Order: sequence, then C-alpha cells, then structure tokens
Amino acid sequence: MTKTLMSSYKKLLEKMKNIVTLHSAASILHWDMETMMPPKGIEMRSLQLAMLSRIGHKMSTDPEIGRLLKETMKHPEYSSLDPVHKRNLYLIKKSYDEQTKLPEELVVEASKQQAVTIDTWKKAKANKDFAKFKPELEKLFKLKKQAAEILMQVKETATPYDALIDIFEPKMTSETISKVFKELREGLILLLRKCETSPKQPDTAILKRQVPIETQQKIGKLLAEFIGYDVTSAKSGGRIDETEHPFTTGYYDDVRITTHYYPNRFASSIFSILHEGGHALYEQNLKSEWMFQPVGDECSMGFHESQSRFVENIVGRSREFWTYFLPKLKKLTGNVLSDVTLDDFVHAINHVKPSKIRVEADEVTYGLHVIIRFNLERDLFADKITIDELPQVWNESYSKYLGVTVEDDSEGVMQDTHWASGLYGYFPSYALGNIYSGQLLYCMEKEQQDWRSQIAKGDLRNVKQWLNKNVHSHGNLYSPPELIKIIAGKDLDVDPFLNYLHEKYSRLYGF
Amino acid sequence: MTKTLMSSYKKLLEKMKNIVTLHSAASILHWDMETMMPPKGIEMRSLQLAMLSRIGHKMSTDPEIGRLLKETMKHPEYSSLDPVHKRNLYLIKKSYDEQTKLPEELVVEASKQQAVTIDTWKKAKANKDFAKFKPELEKLFKLKKQAAEILMQVKETATPYDALIDIFEPKMTSETISKVFKELREGLILLLRKCETSPKQPDTAILKRQVPIETQQKIGKLLAEFIGYDVTSAKSGGRIDETEHPFTTGYYDDVRITTHYYPNRFASSIFSILHEGGHALYEQNLKSEWMFQPVGDECSMGFHESQSRFVENIVGRSREFWTYFLPKLKKLTGNVLSDVTLDDFVHAINHVKPSKIRVEADEVTYGLHVIIRFNLERDLFADKITIDELPQVWNESYSKYLGVTVEDDSEGVMQDTHWASGLYGYFPSYALGNIYSGQLLYCMEKEQQDWRSQIAKGDLRNVKQWLNKNVHSHGNLYSPPELIKIIAGKDLDVDPFLNYLHEKYSRLYGF
Repeated sequence: MTKTLMSSYKKLLEKMKNIVTLHSAASILHWDMETMMPPKGIEMRSLQLAMLSRIGHKMSTDPEIGRLLKETMKHPEYSSLDPVHKRNLYLIKKSYDEQTKLPEELVVEASKQQAVTIDTWKKAKANKDFAKFKPELEKLFKLKKQAAEILMQVKETATPYDALIDIFEPKMTSETISKVFKELREGLILLLRKCETSPKQPDTAILKRQVPIETQQKIGKLLAEFIGYDVTSAKSGGRIDETEHPFTTGYYDDVRITTHYYPNRFASSIFSILHEGGHALYEQNLKSEWMFQPVGDECSMGFHESQSRFVENIVGRSREFWTYFLPKLKKLTGNVLSDVTLDDFVHAINHVKPSKIRVEADEVTYGLHVIIRFNLERDLFADKITIDELPQVWNESYSKYLGVTVEDDSEGVMQDTHWASGLYGYFPSYALGNIYSGQLLYCMEKEQQDWRSQIAKGDLRNVKQWLNKNVHSHGNLYSPPELIKIIAGKDLDVDPFLNYLHEKYSRLYGF
Repeated sequence: MTKTLMSSYKKLLEKMKNIVTLHSAASILHWDMETMMPPKGIEMRSLQLAMLSRIGHKMSTDPEIGRLLKETMKHPEYSSLDPVHKRNLYLIKKSYDEQTKLPEELVVEASKQQAVTIDTWKKAKANKDFAKFKPELEKLFKLKKQAAEILMQVKETATPYDALIDIFEPKMTSETISKVFKELREGLILLLRKCETSPKQPDTAILKRQVPIETQQKIGKLLAEFIGYDVTSAKSGGRIDETEHPFTTGYYDDVRITTHYYPNRFASSIFSILHEGGHALYEQNLKSEWMFQPVGDECSMGFHESQSRFVENIVGRSREFWTYFLPKLKKLTGNVLSDVTLDDFVHAINHVKPSKIRVEADEVTYGLHVIIRFNLERDLFADKITIDELPQVWNESYSKYLGVTVEDDSEGVMQDTHWASGLYGYFPSYALGNIYSGQLLYCMEKEQQDWRSQIAKGDLRNVKQWLNKNVHSHGNLYSPPELIKIIAGKDLDVDPFLNYLHEKYSRLYGF
C-alpha cells in the first residue's frame, strides 16, 4: 500500500473505532436500563440514549467518511489491497451509503414513533387490546416502509422487505427464505405429527418441581463454567443478571448475558443461560486484532442465532450433555430430582408440543412460529394484507400450522416486541439460525466424530474450538451466503437440520 | 423578556440540557465501572469515557454558546431578567469562559497523565513505594498548575491555588480557609486533648462483633427507609451497591449510593450509608423545574459534604437516633448486641482517637486530617514545598497535629486518591462541610426545638423538610458564601460546629 492509501484507510478505521466505542457505551446504558436502573430513571435514560444515537448518526454520516472512501476505493492501488482491507472498505461504504441516504427527519421521526409504539404495545398487550395498538403500529410501519423503499434503492434489493432483511442477514433474500422455509415447514409439520401421535410421551411434571432461585443461580454458574463463559475470575469478561426477557449484549471484553429464574420452571434459566451463553461465546471469540473494525463484527443475526441454538439445543438438550450434567443438577437440588432417570429427564426437556408462544416453543415447532411471522411480514410489505387484518391472519396461521387456537391478541399477534420496536425483517434470522446450526453440526461431525462422548465427559473444548475456527474467527469477513458456503461447501440447506431433528426425535419418541 | 432575548436564552438552556445529559450518561458508565463491569472491560471503558469527555468538552466550548451569551447578556433588556435567568447566564458564562480559555492540548494531556498517575498510584500504594509514584505525580501536578495559572486569569483569583478551590467551592479563597481552619484546628485540638485525657473511655470492642453481610444489607435498607432514600419501590430513584470505597453518583431521578460491608466492622456500612444517603437526598431534592439548568445543580462540594455529614454525624451518631434505631439493630442482629446499652453503644460509635487514615477518622479529628492536606496543597502551589518533600512534611504534620507516627507512605501521603486524580483544591470542602453543618444545625434548632425528640421517635421528616427548604431547594442559585449568609444570616463561622462538638463530647466523655 502506498502512503496515501494507507493513511486514508487508517483514518477510516479510526472513525470506525469511534463509532463502535460510542455504540458500546450506549449498549451499557441499555443493559443498565434493563437490569439495574431505578424505575424513576427512565426519562433521563431515554434522553441519554437518544443523544448518543444522534451523535452516533452524525459520526456515521460524517462527509469526511465519504471523502476518505472515495480516496481509498478509487485509488490506483486499491486492487492490490488484501481481502480484509477490501471487506472493511466495503462494509464502511455500505453502512455510509445507507445511512446518508436516509433523510434525518425520517430517522428521527421513526425513532420517536418507535418509543410511542413500544409504550402503546406494552399497555395494549396488558389489556389484550389490539385496537389500541393498531394506529401506532400503522404509523411506525408506514415510516419503516418509507425507509425500506429508500434502502431498496441503495442496496439494490428486489423488494423493500428484502432491504430490511439485508440489515440483519446481508445478501439474504425473501425469495430464498420463502423457498427454504417451505421445505422447513413441510419437514417440521411431518415431524410434529409423528411426535404428537407417538404413544411414547414424556412426563413434563418433573420440570415443574420447585428449585429455589439461589440454587438456580449456582446451576447457572456451573453452566457458564461448562461452556467456558467466565463470569467470576479476575480476568472475567462477562456476567449473568436477571431480566424479564433474557438477552446478550456487549463487545469482545465485556459481554453480558441475562436470564430469568422461575422457582417452578428451573429448566427455563438453564436453557436461557446456555442460549445466551452461545451468543456470548461468539462475541468474546471474535478475532482480537479486528476489534473496532467492521470485519470484527459478527457475520449476521442468523449466524448469531446459530451459535446460541447450537449451545442451547444441539449441545444443551442432548442426551450426552445430561449424562454429564444431570448428576450435578441432582446434587445441587438436593432430593428434588433424585428419582428422575436420565431418559425421562432428556425426554421431558425435549417435549414436542404445539403452543401459542414462540419463546416457549420446542425445537420442532419453533420454526413454525417464525415462518408464520415471516409470511405476515412479507405480505404486509407487499400490500397483500393490512395491519388491520394481522390478528385474523395470525390466528388462522396458528390454527393451520400448529393446530392451536389463539384466545386473544396478547398471546397472539402482540406477543413479541419486534414489530412494536420497528424490527421488520428480523424474525427470519431465528429460523435461519436453526438451519445454519444443522449445517454446522453436519460439518463438525465429520471432523469430530466423538464430540458426543466428549460432551458426556463434560468436555466442550473441541466443539468450541471447532466453532471458533469455523464461525467466530471469521468475524464479518464474509457475507452469510459466502460463510455458509466456505464452512459447508454448499448453500443454505435445510436437510442437515431436519435430519438432526429426525434422528433425535425418532429416538426420543420411538418412531 | 422580548422574543429575541427569550429565544437566545432558551437556546442556551437547550445546549446546557444536552451537556448535562451527556455527563449523566458518563456518570452511569463510571458507576458501572466501579460496581458491575467485568474486569476485562476496563480498556474499552476507558475509551468510552475518554470519548464522552471529548464530546462533552466540544459541546461545552461550542462557539455558538459564546455568541448566544453575548446576545443575551448585552441585550438592552438583560437587566429586566429575573434572578434565576441571570444566575443561569452567569453560570453558563463562567463555565464557558473557563473551558474555552484552557488549551485543548493541555486538557487532553492532563487527562492522559491523570490515567497514568492513578494507575501508578495504585501500584505504588500497594508496594509502599512513594519513589515510584513521585515522577508521575510531579508531571500531573505541573499540568494542573499550568491550568490553574490560566484559570486564575479568567476567575480573577489571588493565586493559582485559589482558582482550583473555586472549582469546588466557588468564591471561597485560601485566605478565608486559612483563617477559619486556624480556628477550627485550635478548637479541635483542644477538644481532642479533653477526650484523650478523660478517664471515661468507650468499649469499642462491641463494634467488632461479627454481623453477616446479608444482615448488614437488611440494616442498610432500614436506614435508607429512615432517611427516605427509596431503593425498593416501583417509583424508586435510587439503589445501594457495594464498592471498595463508598460514593454517591447521579442526578435527580437516578441517584445511586455504594457502601462496603465488613463482617467484623458492621458500623462501617451503617455510617457510609447514612453519609452517602445524605449526599443522595441533596441530589434528589433539587428543584425539579430547574432540572438540566445550571441553577439546578448543587451549590458546592462543601455544601454537598454538609448534607452527608449532617445525616451521618449530627443525626446518625446522635443519642436520639440510636434511641430509636438500636432496638431495631438488636432485633436484626439476633443476640449479637443484646447485652449492649444505649450509652455504651453511642459512646463507642463516637470514640475520639487520633488515627492515620482520614476516611476512618472520628468527628473531632477528621478536620485535622483535612487541614493538613489543605496546608500542603497551598504550600505546594506557592512553591514553599516540593513534591519531593511531601512525605516528610506529611509525617511531621501528623505527628504535630494528631500525635501519630506514620510508618510508611501508603498509610501516609499516598492514602487518598485525590492528588493522583488531579483533584487539587478539593480537600478543603470536607472540613467546610463540617463547618456549614454546624451553622445549619444552629439555625435549624431555632425553628425545630424538638428535632431530637422527633428523631428518637424515628421521624426525620421535619429535619429533612428544613434541609430541603434551606439548602436543597436553592440548588445553585447562590454561591456558597451567599447561601450560608442567606441561611445563617452571617458568614462562614466555625463556632456553631465547635459548640456542637463541645456539647456532644463533653457529655460523652464527662468533661
């Protein structure tokens, strides 16, 4: 690299470092808001976050970035740059072009409307009153659609909805998703029927036995230790706290997860800690030399979800993990679970049963919840349905796909925060994560034939190393379609995930 | 106000609101760093705080502020503004003039050197090695002196050191402090001799009885309830956490305190919670319509300290408070304190004994620790002594004023973080707080003759109301000398504090 090219590139990276630093500060304020903040602090916190978001937007749209981008990307020696440099420049340009094309009034108005819509959603959900929620959702949807129409031009996507998907899963299209979700749906419904009609059904009452919160906290620390998510040492870069809805937040050296402890549902905190722990391992194991650079980000929300699902389900709900961990759980819980056999426990935590609430769904039905949301989003943005019709279409879909009757909109269309928060195009990531995790498992098994017996001995090191090498360490060097191709040698493919499920559940349910 | 004057004034206030919001965000990040952050997060946190500080400096020195100040303060109708408007403008101008006069390189260099000096101080303190600390302290001192020399011009103070005092205690001078500290020193030393030579000495062994941390946490919540610092309700604007050194941070609706629980020194958390709680009540009871305005700040660090000392010592170490609270403490601690009488307990928590560590000092000797530091600072800035000579002069002063022998510099000149943190001119506030608290007590007693019997019944409401009305609600409308004159009808005066001490300790020690 010649001196000018190098110096412009470094200036760009310095600007990125500032933007990332600002975002990381804002994410601590978000975390504090959910976990620690005294309730009265909410108004001041909103002001603080709005201010950081304004400053962040200004930094991200600084014309100097545009100038430096031109200087580097039109430089005669640009083509001699290595792939990391080029990827950084590509990602900086993508974000800059998108953010500068969105009119500031639209960004500000959408962010204000978002706050109102979330607030209204909370109240409407508590009162089971979709009519109250509807007008605010309509306003937010309209603003987000306007933004999507602008982004569609910049991103050159086929539809506005595709432009939103691209935010969370770059280069993914609604066409591809429609195709793979169709296969996924058919596979899942088939499996669901088999599980439902099997005479062999688990006794899930054992999961309702009382385990005090203090004991669950101890279990949580053991789980963190098992996956190698350090929350106690003097070199720790993580912590576990309690919130209504579990989440992971942070960056590299400070990555925090939350869980919720229910005394009469001890499995809830176990699996949320494994799930969020999977997210945390991804963040903590990104390449340290790429910290603060765009390539130092995770690949996509779908890949993020593949990591959480891998640790939660493929590892955490496996017979082998519980071969190792059930004796520990029994010891910690005194005589609460002493009579429970390994087989009974593993079947109970893998109970397949259609339900109305996504976040409580099992591995088999989970994808169906996501597919319903994707179909609705896609049709909303294509003007095939209206916000007005959402509850009806939602309820019909739940009846058709899952065979459940939604009693009211709070357990129906208003159950998730995403739409109230303006997160359209996000839902597909959840199911894509499952699909990726199946492909990852398939590949890992070829290299680590005895991974299951290692887990049964409590040893996750090789699994983690494999994930580090094949997923985490690539950061955001590739787009999701590129990354899955590099790892699996082929495109997004539902089969490995469906095969994994079939193998697992045929054994559990005896079909 | 005419429209232009009004609109410029409002624009200024809007800018102040942004600055305060940014500072409040930074203070949450500071709090998190001390209480919650995983250790590995420290480097990223330093970057975040440095960035917010840079942004804050830029906002505070925005030339638009200078323009708007001219527009308002030179406006023909300026003189018709009310005192609140005028005070806001005065405070904005003061801060703007000071910050714009300091060269940015000096600010940045001092802030970098500060981080290095603090880090070196921590290590040097652990190794009792002043020689290691000295060169970094010298560098920081030099930079701070440069800044003081510039500020001296802007603030028009008599000496550079006076310019630093003015940061924490506006309009206060080292001349006034020297005068009142002389009287204070004489009074305190006289009292100290009387206490030391009294045959009546307390049994302090009772304060070393073991009280588990969980019990101390319950005691802490009861204390918070007593002073009306809400940390549990759905409308709570506060919380109590644990740190090595207790502190208070926050603004209006989100004010947090910390304490430290020692199983073998239960009184430590009791008095730190009362002390920090006194600070918190001040912040929480500032006038809500002045929120985000300069007048909505506290008056000074000295007045802040007067509030913490009032609650900790005048209320919290009074016989009447323990008449009410000792039975509760006994109940919470099981049979740990069942044999202790009220008289013995009150004398034990008011044990007067010269010591080497400021933060552990009693009410009588505390001022002497502060006076030693003030003398050293004043002489350092006047080039009468050098950093090199600090340890020797420190040790001689401790021997002379307190009759104690300092064994090493870690329990001597390196005990406090202030000088390593660049906080010169701060120490006097601690003793000024005591002096103000004496004047406040004197005035309050004239209006609330039976305040002690109210406390004995567990009722702090009238005391709090008096402090709210006379101190908190004035915010930063007056300078400290003006405020004490308004409250007490006279200038800073040591007598009421010395009289309070004499009355209290003559009774305890029987002289």
